[in-house]
Amino acid sequence: MTNLSTPSTNAITRTDCEQMDRNDPLAGVRSRFNIPEGTIYLDGNSLGALPASTPDRLSNAISLEWGRDLIRSWNHADWARLPHTVGNQLAPLLGAGSGEVIVTDSTSVNIFKLLCAILSQPSIHDDQHKRYILSDRHNFPTDIYIAEGIVRLFGGRYQLKLVEQADLYSSLDTTVAVALITHVDYRTGAMHPMAQFNAQAAKRDISILWDLSHSAGAVKLELNTAGSDFAVGCGYKYLNGGPGAPAYLYVRQARQAALSNPISGWFGHAVPFEFTTDYQPAADIRRFLSGTPSVLATIALAEGIRTFDGVKTDDIRAKSLALSDLFWQLMTTQCAAMGFTCISPADHGRRASHLSFAHTNAYAIMQAIISRGVIGDFRQPNLMRVGFTPLYTRFVDCWDAVATIQDVVKNETWREPQFQTHNLVT
Amino acid sequence: MTNLSTPSTNAITRTDCEQMDRNDPLAGVRSRFNIPEGTIYLDGNSLGALPASTPDRLSNAISLEWGRDLIRSWNHADWARLPHTVGNQLAPLLGAGSGEVIVTDSTSVNIFKLLCAILSQPSIHDDQHKRYILSDRHNFPTDIYIAEGIVRLFGGRYQLKLVEQADLYSSLDTTVAVALITHVDYRTGAMHPMAQFNAQAAKRDISILWDLSHSAGAVKLELNTAGSDFAVGCGYKYLNGGPGAPAYLYVRQARQAALSNPISGWFGHAVPFEFTTDYQPAADIRRFLSGTPSVLATIALAEGIRTFDGVKTDDIRAKSLALSDLFWQLMTTQCAAMGFTCISPADHGRRASHLSFAHTNAYAIMQAIISRGVIGDFRQPNLMRVGFTPLYTRFVDCWDAVATIQDVVKNETWREPQFQTHNLVT
Repeated sequence: MTNLSTPSTNAITRTDCEQMDRNDPLAGVRSRFNIPEGTIYLDGNSLGALPASTPDRLSNAISLEWGRDLIRSWNHADWARLPHTVGNQLAPLLGAGSGEVIVTDSTSVNIFKLLCAILSQPSIHDDQHKRYILSDRHNFPTDIYIAEGIVRLFGGRYQLKLVEQADLYSSLDTTVAVALITHVDYRTGAMHPMAQFNAQAAKRDISILWDLSHSAGAVKLELNTAGSDFAVGCGYKYLNGGPGAPAYLYVRQARQAALSNPISGWFGHAVPFEFTTDYQPAADIRRFLSGTPSVLATIALAEGIRTFDGVKTDDIRAKSLALSDLFWQLMTTQCAAMGFTCISPADHGRRASHLSFAHTNAYAIMQAIISRGVIGDFRQPNLMRVGFTPLYTRFVDCWDAVATIQDVVKNETWREPQFQTHNLVT
Repeated sequence: MTNLSTPSTNAITRTDCEQMDRNDPLAGVRSRFNIPEGTIYLDGNSLGALPASTPDRLSNAISLEWGRDLIRSWNHADWARLPHTVGNQLAPLLGAGSGEVIVTDSTSVNIFKLLCAILSQPSIHDDQHKRYILSDRHNFPTDIYIAEGIVRLFGGRYQLKLVEQADLYSSLDTTVAVALITHVDYRTGAMHPMAQFNAQAAKRDISILWDLSHSAGAVKLELNTAGSDFAVGCGYKYLNGGPGAPAYLYVRQARQAALSNPISGWFGHAVPFEFTTDYQPAADIRRFLSGTPSVLATIALAEGIRTFDGVKTDDIRAKSLALSDLFWQLMTTQCAAMGFTCISPADHGRRASHLSFAHTNAYAIMQAIISRGVIGDFRQPNLMRVGFTPLYTRFVDCWDAVATIQDVVKNETWREPQFQTHNLVT
């Protein structure tokens, strides 16, 4: 943690930020999104902005594919293969191969399916020495909740072992059956060294299920070369798939055949439309499908992923770090001695694409800046979180956002009563 | 089964059908849908037609709620409560009360959740005498596949007992833990007497999980008064929610507290946005939610259900039977001695809202009439299936459809090579 009390000596100006935008190789990609006028959107890590092409693409899917062509679109518009084709479209962003990613269900359901599949394998289930599902005590809640449900379901065969994030790596011992690890922490933006974890896990015969919800589309992912076997992630953050977009699921090719999907629905069947009585799983990644896919939602996700077309992952990563460096530095200079403490890693190798600032009045300050069009979010207990989406966040946005924070704190605008009310969703 | 070999003596004319449309109290409801010109759509039992209001409603959700208001819509547009509010909107169509229905996931996932929840209850799990999941050998495949997965998951504690449909009722003995029964058969359209089954099950301490996929929106459902405890169903058939729409799940109020959702994700938590570490299920039906709901898809379903506004269930049922009576009678007169056998129940009390005709060349005949704008579907092994959607099917549609079938068979158009190719989805 770094306390923001020491102002830097080299003050950056708004003109400097404008210059950075002019030099940005990704500047042109912003036009692929509809960002509302007057809004500085620093919450693409929670809900990605609307791609400019999505309204027309969905309108076409709704009025023509559904409305005009009706049931025939299952074949003619290739609806039935969408989970697979959109999975293949996503695979390069994850560093995965074709046939290793499928788009389906929610992240929670996919965690459930994979945890259950991994722990049901006889090689693990029959080895009484393997008794723990290991996870981070401060992991995103749904990951932990799902793991708790799995523990109940297996009737005591496994236990959930929650440790501090700093102790995760050293807790990878041979008693661990599966480790459920979120690659990027949703609060701090701290990122685990994936290859290092995988190598350690391989030595101890541990399966790691990676949750990439806060990674994909924002940091460089190389699932294959990092030696990852299993992963899931969310489609509505940096992938711009829309609110509650379908999630995705990755299983390394070589591991697919040994795993059984516990939710063995018809779309995971080898020949779903033959209507046979016995469940025979598809030979490939499709075995992890369950029910009928949500066609409109999957098309929206496809359109979201398309915003990455032709964009280099290295450029994304470089801009992401430049944005968070800038924001942090501006907070240090403009909001010094205002009580903010950045809890995100200073080290580039550990930092993903969002920053969190602890502040006693984080909630009210966030509501106050939101009311002025600067949108980030609040996370328990006292975190003001801002996300940087390299495809559409500008350097000048960082400047304007920090200026707004400075103003709101200096003038104590955040004390106004309307900023104290807690909404259902923060 | 009724062989269509004896023509009726009182031939109905197309003019008679036009008159029936003029007398139809639901005739005006058809304008709530965009049915393409020149299409006779008899497949609303597989994918409901596009409601006329859906494109604008979704366009608004996409461009304003998502695009303009971004993350704030979780509160301002009440996205977070959609599964609950749309569930309550649907409840009256099912004969369920407020707080008993929730819209979420797919039918397959919901069957999984409820079967698992029912069978995990100590009162059942600890009673070794209760060892069967009972179902119909010819149930819709995904229902059986999911049950097979549950059997594997419980490691032999339960077995799947598949019987002929006619033997389901008599198989409700005390060894049955749960019966997974589809209310309306997807092939024949035969409907089980729900209250009678529930009464018998109650005597033997059996839980029945009803699959209402081919019922809701087409037949009168009275889950509460019929004594049903558990049900699931699909949103994309008669409910007009769009391709792969979210499914729904019903649990009678009194049974909710005792059940645990195995896929215990954050949206089923009592206070999801408090981000606590321990899973505490919501006190109400929300405990059956798992991951983040698909907002766009749920809004589309809400719009689909809205097409029932102000429509009386009795009018739906009366028109549905009048349509299937007419179609059947026309097949008897116009397509006599052409080799069609209707396998649907003649008895109104047993017939739902679609008819199936067995024919040696069912597949090719169906493709041939589809090419002429009359859309039904084919089901294995030899069934031509036609569905009647009282909100938009006209009596004259039945006339025109049968005339097309007659022509295609008489002129042997169905023999053309393009009608022999089997598509992925039939």
